[in-house]
Amino acid sequence: MLPELTDLNSFRTALIHAPGPDLSAAHGAQDRNGQLTKPPGALGRLEDLAIWYASWRGDARPRISAPQVIVFAGNHGVTAQGVSAFPSEVTMQMVLNFEHGGAAINQLAKAAGAKMDVHALELDRPTADFTQGPALSEEELLEALRTGWQAVDPQSDLLVVGEMGIGNTTPAAAIACALFGGDAADWTGRGTGVDDAGLANKTRVVAAGVALHGQEGDGLHILRCLGGREIAAMAGAIAAARILRIPVILDGFICTAAAACLSQLSKGALDHTVAGHQSAEGAHAALLGKLGKDPLLSLGLRLGEGSGGALAINILKSAVACHSGMATFAEAGVAEG
Amino acid sequence: MLPELTDLNSFRTALIHAPGPDLSAAHGAQDRNGQLTKPPGALGRLEDLAIWYASWRGDARPRISAPQVIVFAGNHGVTAQGVSAFPSEVTMQMVLNFEHGGAAINQLAKAAGAKMDVHALELDRPTADFTQGPALSEEELLEALRTGWQAVDPQSDLLVVGEMGIGNTTPAAAIACALFGGDAADWTGRGTGVDDAGLANKTRVVAAGVALHGQEGDGLHILRCLGGREIAAMAGAIAAARILRIPVILDGFICTAAAACLSQLSKGALDHTVAGHQSAEGAHAALLGKLGKDPLLSLGLRLGEGSGGALAINILKSAVACHSGMATFAEAGVAEG
Repeated sequence: MLPELTDLNSFRTALIHAPGPDLSAAHGAQDRNGQLTKPPGALGRLEDLAIWYASWRGDARPRISAPQVIVFAGNHGVTAQGVSAFPSEVTMQMVLNFEHGGAAINQLAKAAGAKMDVHALELDRPTADFTQGPALSEEELLEALRTGWQAVDPQSDLLVVGEMGIGNTTPAAAIACALFGGDAADWTGRGTGVDDAGLANKTRVVAAGVALHGQEGDGLHILRCLGGREIAAMAGAIAAARILRIPVILDGFICTAAAACLSQLSKGALDHTVAGHQSAEGAHAALLGKLGKDPLLSLGLRLGEGSGGALAINILKSAVACHSGMATFAEAGVAEG
Repeated sequence: MLPELTDLNSFRTALIHAPGPDLSAAHGAQDRNGQLTKPPGALGRLEDLAIWYASWRGDARPRISAPQVIVFAGNHGVTAQGVSAFPSEVTMQMVLNFEHGGAAINQLAKAAGAKMDVHALELDRPTADFTQGPALSEEELLEALRTGWQAVDPQSDLLVVGEMGIGNTTPAAAIACALFGGDAADWTGRGTGVDDAGLANKTRVVAAGVALHGQEGDGLHILRCLGGREIAAMAGAIAAARILRIPVILDGFICTAAAACLSQLSKGALDHTVAGHQSAEGAHAALLGKLGKDPLLSLGLRLGEGSGGALAINILKSAVACHSGMATFAEAGVAEG
């Protein structure tokens, strides 16, 4: 059961006290894995994935039958600084495209057998420009976290969260830079495709935001000052999934920046997550490295929407299908060599 | 339509004269890709995959609805040299496991929505030990090629071929070494798990086979002298798919060695193939490099059976689903930026 989010501290407390994986199920799954009709270790990473999934579901022989993809959308005041190649109107246009089934994530969710939900967060009320002040008030952050928190279906058994928000690689880069240090240029990439001058401008904007807000405070402070509504909603959903023991496949750079804020709040906050895909967005590999996450896929996507996470659902489904569906040596009458 | 295989030369001729991709469909697909509701290139490799698939199917907006997985099994006289950690009886035991639905490939084919066929090739009549003479006679090679040739369902729209054959990383290594040169040690790996002494012995066996048979002859000669029935059947199936314009996802080291024999016969013989997964078997990456194939996945599998290829089916399905299912900017009313 999810506790109610009454204030930001209730969020921190819930995350810190979230239950861990079921070690008995993990041992049972490990034991079963050793008996399956294959040479030891021959399914490679699929074996680790299945055991990890089993541990979070508390079932040594689990199934995946109800994946959920949630796409959150938000708009960003920092676009006033000219950080994106697209106008902010595209956020709403793409939300309609999601609702009509025409976007990439619709096809990918369908191909993965996942249900898909879309939450547009006050698109007509962009965040404040973080070079001028905090992107969100405490109340606005709480509201966005709550949207993500409540969007997770407790009956789902796997979660992917994605986003749409013109300009949102800029807050994601600022969050990463504030959390992990380094130069703004290390964390700033081309997003949907700004040119060299655009990249230089974007780097300047990220540096200004980090200089203004990044010197103190925890992950929620950084999320509030530099983030955005859809980024906070992703963080809220990932945290809720942690408490509900629903495994999560992380998507690209912006989703991973949201997750990184949780990681700063509580050491094991992302133990229920795997990285689905390493984005072509420059700094994603470094960000995953900071979180110790090795991506399942690396196919050059840089779209967001949850696309990389959704593409990896079938990998995890396949891992669990092998684990739970294969015969043991004894059942099949196969010699163990 | 597939021509009849009357002799080995009819195989060579059919492969050399196989039709190429449909360039009109490729152009149509390229054009459509540019209109879809995403920033240019944002789906990365999925875009290239969809256009490639469209070109082979002759349809600018294709679907994948009938994938086929075929597993071929054979036994190897070279196991008399002690090259495997498992006894040859396991080949038949695993064939029964495939038929009863208990193996990894059964679960992976099901997760990919693919039908699966199994062909056991004269398991009670292993190939000759290639350190003593040619593994197969010309008549035996023809028969094995024909088994693969005829196993491809002309109604399928995607093919994965896999194998089971205790000891068969040894002939695969010998084929790779004979085709591409280098030391036997460069191409010889641990297979299902031989120890250091086993690896040294296996390397000696590969070197002996290549010294005896690898100095002359084309890809079919090498396949006959150093290969095996299931390896030849895979080559036959991949060639048939080339002629039928059915795209193929290559599996691991042994499947790729079979494919490499075709590549030696005709320059474009593998243009209808993509590499599904880079195996943990040591030399697979080098072999894919020789063929210019960049694998879709790298998850540490080293099982064979078609497992790596089958795992990649959903990636290709997802690519084609995005390409053919997404709305265009005009349809969705989204600004192009």
